Amino acid sequence: MSGRVFVIGLGPGDEAMRTAQASDALAQATDLVGYAPYVARVRTGPEVVRHVSDNRAELDRATLALNLAESGRIVAVVSAGDPGVFAMASAVFEAIETGDPAWRALDVSILPGVSAMMAAAARVGAPLGGDFCAISLSDNLKPWPVVLQRLEAAASAGFVVALYNPISQARPWQLGAAFERLRALLPPERPVLFATAVSRADERIRLCTLGDAKPDFADMRTLVLVGGPGTRAIARPDGSFWLYTARSISAE
Amino acid sequence: MSGRVFVIGLGPGDEAMRTAQASDALAQATDLVGYAPYVARVRTGPEVVRHVSDNRAELDRATLALNLAESGRIVAVVSAGDPGVFAMASAVFEAIETGDPAWRALDVSILPGVSAMMAAAARVGAPLGGDFCAISLSDNLKPWPVVLQRLEAAASAGFVVALYNPISQARPWQLGAAFERLRALLPPERPVLFATAVSRADERIRLCTLGDAKPDFADMRTLVLVGGPGTRAIARPDGSFWLYTARSISAE
Repeated sequence: MSGRVFVIGLGPGDEAMRTAQASDALAQATDLVGYAPYVARVRTGPEVVRHVSDNRAELDRATLALNLAESGRIVAVVSAGDPGVFAMASAVFEAIETGDPAWRALDVSILPGVSAMMAAAARVGAPLGGDFCAISLSDNLKPWPVVLQRLEAAASAGFVVALYNPISQARPWQLGAAFERLRALLPPERPVLFATAVSRADERIRLCTLGDAKPDFADMRTLVLVGGPGTRAIARPDGSFWLYTARSISAE
Repeated sequence: MSGRVFVIGLGPGDEAMRTAQASDALAQATDLVGYAPYVARVRTGPEVVRHVSDNRAELDRATLALNLAESGRIVAVVSAGDPGVFAMASAVFEAIETGDPAWRALDVSILPGVSAMMAAAARVGAPLGGDFCAISLSDNLKPWPVVLQRLEAAASAGFVVALYNPISQARPWQLGAAFERLRALLPPERPVLFATAVSRADERIRLCTLGDAKPDFADMRTLVLVGGPGTRAIARPDGSFWLYTARSISAE
């Protein structure tokens, strides 16, 4: 029997937002590999082997998956959201590029999922309706000045900005520093959305302005969206809101 | 009976990449509204009313959907990919913002989908593995100088760039102009991916360098990805390749 690797996007949380393709691959797997809370989301029979690991062990996890596949196992590497967005797919190819040349012949399939930013956007309306970008605030793998440079470039050019990995115990100050830098470039009334655990039981949604945005509105499971010049809220009669970005930009 | 609007992401093409939630909403709909080729992808019973329209009639389409919902119909507005990314969700909120105030009380749900850029990325590896942005090359709703300014900002700051709406009969020169501008900023060996009709029967994938990229490698159904500084190909023994963006950026 020849093994293979599926790198699977589980979507934001609710199983109803998982693709049929992802569910089918999970049903075939002999082994699940991933960060413990994501592996815990997957229901399987008792014969499936679960290899759980800590949050920052991506390369070890990728190597384990490739070794298992080489030995004939059918391995599902699971990520929340989409596996290609600040998740496991890159780590798998990094391991392949630098690892055993035989891995280049392995059957590796990336199964896309509904990303955190698109789930967060859909939850409140259509704030990604214009040009947008996604930036990880983690400086574990890139220098902080690069993060700031990209924030500035994106904000100055009018992109809506999705911030991934906004805050954690090990990285407590980066989100505050990002807001500070953005406040120097953008008007204080610019909308900022904090979408936490979207589609899960403990989902929290908070809309504020850039002037009022505070890092403690976010935790590890929060996607932060900073609006662009065309992003605005529509008030609803029940007191709730929709947030969207207009498609049109007029000439200045 | 009270009506409602679902704005649904069908995903890139293959039904296996549709979410369960999207399929459930389609099964409830009394009316389908959308651009003809997307409506054609949805299988329904004969009692479902199909309202097809031309590509650029987004606001008329949104208004029709809201009127139908107000009259008690269950309306599925369908988009390819994710409905919040250069698709119908923004147009629906634009219609609500400027239209009948009663529409603000309507039940409107946005159901996210696997976006074209994530499907294209998954098909070849993980080229969106670093910070990235999405830019529509259409200048129907924004001035061309804004497009160029955003391209320059994104390329200069090291983002991977996904180009939506790269070319059409009505917009034949924009993609060539975009490549020309990018060639002035980026090294000619930077990888460029053309992913057309991903997951459909006539899928085409082409990898080249920025130096060699030509507009006629794309059509209306192509997602163009311009790599960042960490984007590179891995050759496979069968002559195919994987394309991915490394997670790490070293300090300069």
